[in-house]
Amino acid sequence: MRPSVIVFDVNETLSDLSPLGARFVEVGASASAAPLWFASVLRDGFALTVVGENPPFAGVARELLLAQLSESVLNRSVEEAAGHVMDGFASLELHADVSSGIEWLHEDGYRLATFSNGSTSVAERLLTAGHIRDRFELLLSVEDAGAWKPSPTAYDYAAKQCGTAPEDIALVAVHPWDVDGARRAGFQSIWVNRSERHFPATFQEPTYTVSGIEQIRELWA
Amino acid sequence: MRPSVIVFDVNETLSDLSPLGARFVEVGASASAAPLWFASVLRDGFALTVVGENPPFAGVARELLLAQLSESVLNRSVEEAAGHVMDGFASLELHADVSSGIEWLHEDGYRLATFSNGSTSVAERLLTAGHIRDRFELLLSVEDAGAWKPSPTAYDYAAKQCGTAPEDIALVAVHPWDVDGARRAGFQSIWVNRSERHFPATFQEPTYTVSGIEQIRELWA
Repeated sequence: MRPSVIVFDVNETLSDLSPLGARFVEVGASASAAPLWFASVLRDGFALTVVGENPPFAGVARELLLAQLSESVLNRSVEEAAGHVMDGFASLELHADVSSGIEWLHEDGYRLATFSNGSTSVAERLLTAGHIRDRFELLLSVEDAGAWKPSPTAYDYAAKQCGTAPEDIALVAVHPWDVDGARRAGFQSIWVNRSERHFPATFQEPTYTVSGIEQIRELWA
Repeated sequence: MRPSVIVFDVNETLSDLSPLGARFVEVGASASAAPLWFASVLRDGFALTVVGENPPFAGVARELLLAQLSESVLNRSVEEAAGHVMDGFASLELHADVSSGIEWLHEDGYRLATFSNGSTSVAERLLTAGHIRDRFELLLSVEDAGAWKPSPTAYDYAAKQCGTAPEDIALVAVHPWDVDGARRAGFQSIWVNRSERHFPATFQEPTYTVSGIEQIRELWA
């Protein structure tokens, strides 16, 4: 069934996190610290979601940098090093497949939105820098939902903001836990698998799998 | 207040995960994949906890290995590589400070237990290999609790199994999210900080902080 709204996760789904490795190297840590940090931010955010908290993403991210970076020999203070990585996180760019893919979906008449565990200001800057901000009707954040994805509370909020039944929305994400949460909340789900990864069988399978944002148009062509 | 029961987290709190790096190298991946994998296992387990599931730790761990290892050039099949890492996980040893620390707490008359997001068989093997199994009255797993830590359901289960009021139990963990969850459930909490790490301010502070299991005895001396 063709959805009327397509909702995109932001971090790593639209933005390319790979430049973060260089930021860690620049402060004296190793590039491999970047994916560990990002996974740990989600881990801690989810742990706080389990106990009923709804912490700001940037706060969890910064505190974990202070913890993680203190184990490396840095070329500046740990606070400055954390700031340098956070600045990098705030200046990421779109993956190469995003602009054209979004343009085509807009042409095809889909309503487009973002929905992030981060703040809307991150999505606002990313999409503006990529010259596709005006293709999106809504930029949503769990900060206004009361709980991080994958809590059902989060997806319910997004559906209400879209003014649409969950089954009329397709959520797009690179993260299996997000795809799974959206499915459980009644959304259609599209898993973006840019590197031919295995989808963990512990999660509910996506409705659709694509290798990039450009392939989404073909799903209902 | 001196607790009557001391409950220990198992993975990374009692067991030393550092040999896992070599397991990843042996299959053709990099040593830095080990901490990323462990953080990701907790991330995905917590995500499933948020949506009300209670998945087996080893299942989440294995599926993530299949996903993560498929991005490296391996010297064997991805299934064999995942098996090699899982075998390593099942043959870890105690941190150097554990045996003597446990011995002293036992001498001092505390009741001792473990409580893990993994299965009790992992704790059973680890403690038996370290010759301290008989110092523990109970080995508990969230498999029987209905939800992973840090869900309040998990700590409530542990308190019931110990037959003690939560405030009469001290939970010992290296993980800030576990320390935080235990505090919220009314336990005392002891954060084991072996490497002078920063405690993320996003979590509730531990009741006590120690640099190793051997220091716990001194808290109520």
